[in-house]
Amino acid sequence: MTFTRMDAYLQDNLDASLAELSDLCRIPSIAAQNTGLQEGAESVAAMLKKRGFTVEIMPTGGAPVVFGERKGRVDKTMLIYNHYDVQPAEPLELWDSPPFEPTLRDGKLFARGVSDDKAHITSRLHALDALLDAEGELPCNIKFIIEGEEEIGSVNLPPFIKAHAEKFAGDACIWEFGALDHNDVPIQFAGLRGICYVELSVESLSTDVHSGLGGTIFPNAAWRLVWALASIKGPDERIRIPNYYDNVVPPSARDHELFAKLPEIADEYRQRYGVKEFLKGVTGGPELRIQETLLPSCTICGLTSGYQGPGTKTVLPAKASAKVDFRLVPDQTPEDVVAKLRAHLDAEGFSDIHIDYLGGEAPGRTDPDDPFLQMVVQTAEEIYESEMEIHPMIGGSGPNHAFLHYLNVPVATAGLGYPDTRAHAPNENIRLDHYLQHARHITRILKTFAG
Amino acid sequence: MTFTRMDAYLQDNLDASLAELSDLCRIPSIAAQNTGLQEGAESVAAMLKKRGFTVEIMPTGGAPVVFGERKGRVDKTMLIYNHYDVQPAEPLELWDSPPFEPTLRDGKLFARGVSDDKAHITSRLHALDALLDAEGELPCNIKFIIEGEEEIGSVNLPPFIKAHAEKFAGDACIWEFGALDHNDVPIQFAGLRGICYVELSVESLSTDVHSGLGGTIFPNAAWRLVWALASIKGPDERIRIPNYYDNVVPPSARDHELFAKLPEIADEYRQRYGVKEFLKGVTGGPELRIQETLLPSCTICGLTSGYQGPGTKTVLPAKASAKVDFRLVPDQTPEDVVAKLRAHLDAEGFSDIHIDYLGGEAPGRTDPDDPFLQMVVQTAEEIYESEMEIHPMIGGSGPNHAFLHYLNVPVATAGLGYPDTRAHAPNENIRLDHYLQHARHITRILKTFAG
Repeated sequence: MTFTRMDAYLQDNLDASLAELSDLCRIPSIAAQNTGLQEGAESVAAMLKKRGFTVEIMPTGGAPVVFGERKGRVDKTMLIYNHYDVQPAEPLELWDSPPFEPTLRDGKLFARGVSDDKAHITSRLHALDALLDAEGELPCNIKFIIEGEEEIGSVNLPPFIKAHAEKFAGDACIWEFGALDHNDVPIQFAGLRGICYVELSVESLSTDVHSGLGGTIFPNAAWRLVWALASIKGPDERIRIPNYYDNVVPPSARDHELFAKLPEIADEYRQRYGVKEFLKGVTGGPELRIQETLLPSCTICGLTSGYQGPGTKTVLPAKASAKVDFRLVPDQTPEDVVAKLRAHLDAEGFSDIHIDYLGGEAPGRTDPDDPFLQMVVQTAEEIYESEMEIHPMIGGSGPNHAFLHYLNVPVATAGLGYPDTRAHAPNENIRLDHYLQHARHITRILKTFAG
Repeated sequence: MTFTRMDAYLQDNLDASLAELSDLCRIPSIAAQNTGLQEGAESVAAMLKKRGFTVEIMPTGGAPVVFGERKGRVDKTMLIYNHYDVQPAEPLELWDSPPFEPTLRDGKLFARGVSDDKAHITSRLHALDALLDAEGELPCNIKFIIEGEEEIGSVNLPPFIKAHAEKFAGDACIWEFGALDHNDVPIQFAGLRGICYVELSVESLSTDVHSGLGGTIFPNAAWRLVWALASIKGPDERIRIPNYYDNVVPPSARDHELFAKLPEIADEYRQRYGVKEFLKGVTGGPELRIQETLLPSCTICGLTSGYQGPGTKTVLPAKASAKVDFRLVPDQTPEDVVAKLRAHLDAEGFSDIHIDYLGGEAPGRTDPDDPFLQMVVQTAEEIYESEMEIHPMIGGSGPNHAFLHYLNVPVATAGLGYPDTRAHAPNENIRLDHYLQHARHITRILKTFAG
């Protein structure tokens, strides 16, 4: 009966919430380009104040963190982690409507950052409005921690969380994102891989040289880079850095059991990405999911050297560089990866290769059988007509390690991403039905959590 | 006494010749950008007609060849090979004066293409004017073959030469370029390496993928490219393509003898290019020269894949490509290199790597003891106060193979390049003293050739 009133409130006040979301999406709060971050922080701070939260805009050394706290009926504390920064909007020409002019079409709202992560902020506030309307108070204490650097690897967040562990203390945490699969079945991601992102660069000469002159006598930066990369991983996909797998915790029996319950994904990947053959000979099933999320990866994200235009230019390049992304699984750490990479390159004769550490995050997992996580899974059923699928890990990364290990809270995901949401891409969008469903799910989570 | 008159003519009419050169340099006849080629051809055709040559502008399938012929006192025929096309002028912002507005400064003329190759054309015509002024006729028959695609690898020239071998028949050939070293000592390049220029590309997926998703399950185009390249050449600099060295003629005893006479170049290279160590442990001496010019090379000229901007982007690239330049020595051919490369990649498991053949030229050498070449070397002494240094080969490439093997003529170099001439680079220039010296040398070559 309370939920009936809340659900009606959510439906009846949807336009006002979308208007608030649209205002937020008009702010180009792009961490990578260092624009709109103060405005983004002030905007979400104002939204929290409007709901009676005590709000601080806290300096971190980078973009500020907005911290908002409001007491509730019972003395249990839910942390809600979000971010007000968004990805760059480029390439602009591929957008059907301007990225910072939110546009409704076909039951979807299009804007940069609408899915990642601004609609998660406003739909959760929308849920709180419904709770306050129905009950006059919040069911439990709520602390929002809303950062502005998630899209650049949350570079300042982990030490900030550690330094304010008492202030941010809580009993559980709702993560910034969540998703539905291509059958509209909601997914619970119980863990996130870590990441260690480096740029490898080499300068072999003071200037580019005509290739007819130097090819057999001068060191070529592009060749040096190619050989160094090939020393890191070969076509067998095994990372050749000594002792690289020492800290890797292998998948557990429970992981295998959970992955075995998930629907087949291989054909979806084949069609969506044009994959002909998956790596290491896997063809699908739980093995594909385990390989995707529970193995460490080493990905070349970019290569650049010398002449890259049409036709020919006979040049021997003085400089070359590669962007390389290592995804980490428990108990690897980015610091350890950088140290082992340096030692490996030196040992292989590549001390000329410079490593620039561009950022990293440790991996983090919540026990999939944790009672809070299980509650989030079960409360989904009423909303989505399906319990959540539990994925022990997702392949991507985020700062959940800091919440798990500095605040000692279980972390669960819930949200409104979906396969065509186009986060990080042109025409990013959310579906309005998902927006309402997520707000409804949040009301159930908070009420059940409070007990 | 005749030479006294000619030398005076060359000095007295220098301004008129430079005006003609400047007019030619104002035409942006850029083969790579397909601009100004017809205008360039017509302009050099007009210059030849003005000197009483019978001129044809001959279609080749690409930019036309200007062919000019005039009979002389004795029935021996000198071929003169030049090109009216130039390199692109970019990067424009690095020019101190606009590339197509020839500008005199400090005894130098600056313009795109002035050294490579337009001043060679007009200084040779200037020499003919002096000969005609002094003697009323040319000492021998002269055939100019002036192409418009040298800077894009003379793609149409070799079959064109072969098809018109009778028309282009001659007794010897003066090559398009020549150079002085950093001590103003003229150099005779008795051969040119060949070239085989390919683009290697691979497409592993239909779209780029988030690196958190695909790193351990989807094939990565950048990794495929890196591994394929590493299979071609390793840090020991040996090209690993099977049977690659089968057709390589090793340096002869005479090559060693000639290289031993040349001045040390190692320090010049160290300073000019910031080389710390030469490849394969050589430190200088004739070994450095031999390795530079008489060994086959494999040079990565460019690499491109994925994200190449500042900071991080977590992307798994669907596409990657490399520009690769093989320099060839007798008796290698570009066709054989492409075939062996394809077989090698297939055998190594890289049949997904596409090879795009962007052009090639076979290598060619004139015997350094050929009487014509020796005459060019000796006639230099009066002009430059030094005989030419004889380099059995230069590391660069050109279509000399077609002249050597289809027309059966010895080819000798003479010209006005110098270490700071900046061919292919911003602020390309010639020195006016070298311009006059080259014209004087040409008068001696032609008179001595006619006997």
